[in-house]
Amino acid sequence: MTANILFAARPDSWAEYEKPLRTALEKTGVSYSLSTEFPPEEVDYIIYAPNSEVQDFTPFTRAKAVLNLWAGVEHVAPNPTLDIPLARMVGGGLTEGMVEWVTGHTLRHHLGMDAHIVNPSNHWKPSPPPLAYERSVTILGLGELGRACATALAGLGFAVSGWSRSPKMIEGVTCHHGDSGLKDAIQDAEIIILLLPNTPATENTLNAETLALTAPGAFVINPGRGTLIDDDALLAALESGQIAHATLDVFRKEPLPADHPYWSHPKVTVTPHIASDTRPGPASEVIAENVRRGEEGAPFLHLVDRSAGY
Amino acid sequence: MTANILFAARPDSWAEYEKPLRTALEKTGVSYSLSTEFPPEEVDYIIYAPNSEVQDFTPFTRAKAVLNLWAGVEHVAPNPTLDIPLARMVGGGLTEGMVEWVTGHTLRHHLGMDAHIVNPSNHWKPSPPPLAYERSVTILGLGELGRACATALAGLGFAVSGWSRSPKMIEGVTCHHGDSGLKDAIQDAEIIILLLPNTPATENTLNAETLALTAPGAFVINPGRGTLIDDDALLAALESGQIAHATLDVFRKEPLPADHPYWSHPKVTVTPHIASDTRPGPASEVIAENVRRGEEGAPFLHLVDRSAGY
Repeated sequence: MTANILFAARPDSWAEYEKPLRTALEKTGVSYSLSTEFPPEEVDYIIYAPNSEVQDFTPFTRAKAVLNLWAGVEHVAPNPTLDIPLARMVGGGLTEGMVEWVTGHTLRHHLGMDAHIVNPSNHWKPSPPPLAYERSVTILGLGELGRACATALAGLGFAVSGWSRSPKMIEGVTCHHGDSGLKDAIQDAEIIILLLPNTPATENTLNAETLALTAPGAFVINPGRGTLIDDDALLAALESGQIAHATLDVFRKEPLPADHPYWSHPKVTVTPHIASDTRPGPASEVIAENVRRGEEGAPFLHLVDRSAGY
Repeated sequence: MTANILFAARPDSWAEYEKPLRTALEKTGVSYSLSTEFPPEEVDYIIYAPNSEVQDFTPFTRAKAVLNLWAGVEHVAPNPTLDIPLARMVGGGLTEGMVEWVTGHTLRHHLGMDAHIVNPSNHWKPSPPPLAYERSVTILGLGELGRACATALAGLGFAVSGWSRSPKMIEGVTCHHGDSGLKDAIQDAEIIILLLPNTPATENTLNAETLALTAPGAFVINPGRGTLIDDDALLAALESGQIAHATLDVFRKEPLPADHPYWSHPKVTVTPHIASDTRPGPASEVIAENVRRGEEGAPFLHLVDRSAGY
């Protein structure tokens, strides 16, 4: 039997993905046909991105799985027409890219780099920053990405705390969990990194109340999801100085509208959702492995728990 | 016998150092007297910084060692009046600080952060950087600091090469050595980090010839010594685009004179010799340990090989 694999992500990514997907699929030994067009009822696997034109899964009557190219599944997991397994992207360069972006911006704020980059003057004023072990960094969200970032930052010597809904253990990281643990995790933190998934329970995790718990002049780094922050509360905390600077990669509306106050705010750094991006080569390996598993009747990797929403 | 320990660094650092030094010395159990004034012939140990008023060691007839608070010894090692052991500072927060500064600025250039910090615009233009494993980083100098930085950057996934005068082995790092190895180390490097000591042999290591070997548009990061770079050659390479940006922490003359072209150069970031600075707490532990060794007749730690100059 030949497995029919529909590439249903946006057409412009087909050029990027076709070759690495074929290379990865050849290696599995699975007999397959890969295309951007099949009659729906003949499709076995759907390679997907949530901004796809495909939003109704009803016609895909024999499909075995939806294989998402993105880590984020909030725009597909709740789809009521989806009743087959949904796998999210894990690996595919996502974790490495996220660790690099998070570590870089953490060090940027830790070292006070902007003073030398943004406003160069010819004034020689040495003031070495504290060492990393004197800097408390809190990561909200300890999934694949949060755990990798926590480990990298702890490896550089930072005093890292983390928080997740359910209990976690990470070497070198003080882990908190549950509703009561959230306040403990944020209390006195100097750098807060948001890597929670987007679910109803995580909306506005950073709000007026929790922002008031950080150390005065703390930094906020959000490579997670725009909905994690109450934007008005953050702007007020920047105004008061409770938060010294926010580096934001994700927003409630993307691209961030040109008239949004974040763009021109002197205490906000906007990056255009680049903290972590799937790279076609490694991502194709992940997709091909799940096709191989499906054909052999083995359990899929990285299945989404759709009741939790991630 | 009570050991007389002269604090001969600049008087303004006495306030910072007296308490942590006493704390560290108490812990050794050595009988000591610590002061900024003794008759020279009664001094047993000299705690030193190269900018000290003491430049003639002849009167210190019974002193057992000069214990330097700085890693750099180029202004004391050649002193012809010095004929007792000279120990340099290793540890004391120097390594941690250097690793943090070097890793931060490496990630800054790797990620292309400045585009988002220096010239914020409301133009949403995602272009994720390559992953660290696709970025070749070369560290010239594999002493204590170079080795620690190489290990940290390799730990983040960078493709790290290193060069030193004599052969070295560092896990995860491609090590070159000797005159012939220098060109191999620089060839096609995208980020070059200078951590060589200041000796006649290392002067102008980065010059017109070696700058031409890097990948086009490479980044130079110099937390080592100002003399390692031929400044005119670097300015020419920045002009031509062969070097995209230089982040410089050390200079031939410090403070960097207000009219130096580096201050206002759009492709140069100046930091005021803050990459690594001795921290009094941990540095005092290193000094106290060497006093203890001297009193017990054990070999001193971190002795300078004065024929090599470091």
